[in-house]
Amino acid sequence: MDKIKTIAFDADDTLWMNEPIFTDTRLKFEEILGKYISINENLEKELYSVESRNLKLFGYGIKGFTLSMVESALELTNYAIKGKDIERIILLGKEMLEHPVQVLPDIEEVLDILENHYHLMIITKGDLWDQENKIARSGLMRYFNTVEIVSEKNTATYREVLKRNSINAAEFLMIGNSLKSDVLPVIEMGSQAIHIPFHDTWTHEMIDKSEVNELTYIEMSSVSKLPEYLGV
Amino acid sequence: MDKIKTIAFDADDTLWMNEPIFTDTRLKFEEILGKYISINENLEKELYSVESRNLKLFGYGIKGFTLSMVESALELTNYAIKGKDIERIILLGKEMLEHPVQVLPDIEEVLDILENHYHLMIITKGDLWDQENKIARSGLMRYFNTVEIVSEKNTATYREVLKRNSINAAEFLMIGNSLKSDVLPVIEMGSQAIHIPFHDTWTHEMIDKSEVNELTYIEMSSVSKLPEYLGV
Repeated sequence: MDKIKTIAFDADDTLWMNEPIFTDTRLKFEEILGKYISINENLEKELYSVESRNLKLFGYGIKGFTLSMVESALELTNYAIKGKDIERIILLGKEMLEHPVQVLPDIEEVLDILENHYHLMIITKGDLWDQENKIARSGLMRYFNTVEIVSEKNTATYREVLKRNSINAAEFLMIGNSLKSDVLPVIEMGSQAIHIPFHDTWTHEMIDKSEVNELTYIEMSSVSKLPEYLGV
Repeated sequence: MDKIKTIAFDADDTLWMNEPIFTDTRLKFEEILGKYISINENLEKELYSVESRNLKLFGYGIKGFTLSMVESALELTNYAIKGKDIERIILLGKEMLEHPVQVLPDIEEVLDILENHYHLMIITKGDLWDQENKIARSGLMRYFNTVEIVSEKNTATYREVLKRNSINAAEFLMIGNSLKSDVLPVIEMGSQAIHIPFHDTWTHEMIDKSEVNELTYIEMSSVSKLPEYLGV
């Protein structure tokens, strides 16, 4: 990989913990609904189906997720849910927005090494306000030359980001936890990608492994192996 | 103004109608609450106070506004509001997100002239997903070389936008309807600004005119006067 000049990192569940906060919130949401209905696996499916149908309108992020929780709660309880419990659900969303940013293990040590050799970027999708706040609170901003917050990660948006920053696709490496958002579209435009799986993946980001079967990308169990792999 | 090379337009209530959609939604919101409480001017004040206290957490945009409407409704009705009416409030938010984009009069004609003489930009604050959708649906994208969606419009963010796009502050002109967001911070960094007031202004964007008393900026009653003013 001696041609690589720019390395871009995904943010949520690559630089810091994210999905476990959603998972934890879903459990608290079920606890609230448990007063009205019996809790089973259909409840999570129902919430995900409301989330999915709202995605085109809301985009990614906690505010849209919170609105989807309220909507699911109304539907699942057949509108019997009490005002105080609606308020509790909104509060769950607010707690997510204020949740401390927990940088993942080895990230700082690896960035310390990489910053001397590469142009470093963050490319993250989601809510502008929320992502900017997390980046600021992570304390990692000093490592990154450029931050790009996009509404969706596909080949078109990656191409735009590279063009805007005058980056040659052959000299670009993307690192992230989502095959769908961080690996597939990047390989498709002729760049390189490293997949670092995270133990908790949102259903929306899951893809059938056969989709990437014939593509060439690296899977790495830990970011700590990155410097050696890159030879720096 | 013969030095100007880049002209940036604000989007909401400069390129297309926005605040009237919020005003209209506030009226529909009051109608829903009218079943529970008597409607008076305090109601609008209460909603604005919830919006303001949530702004730091939610940022600008329709999703945050919708969550604030639900929260106000719970507080104002002392949690008596029924589930069906909470759902109606969420639907109001969804209708806003799907509202057709109404480009303001003379905008297209003016852009038709300007695009031959200047590098044209959009600089807008708000929700990334929502703003991108509105830009796409406006049909105006063909006129603009660059779109910058920022979370807040202050001198720091304008400086960053100019730096990122290699624009000299002395060659930059900003056009918008908000003195607070489109004029003050731009003048402060040594660029030029034209204020085109819109009949409907969100309380949050209002400032005391004395704040801009000693600053030099142009106020224009209609965007149609822009080409003549610029001499193109």
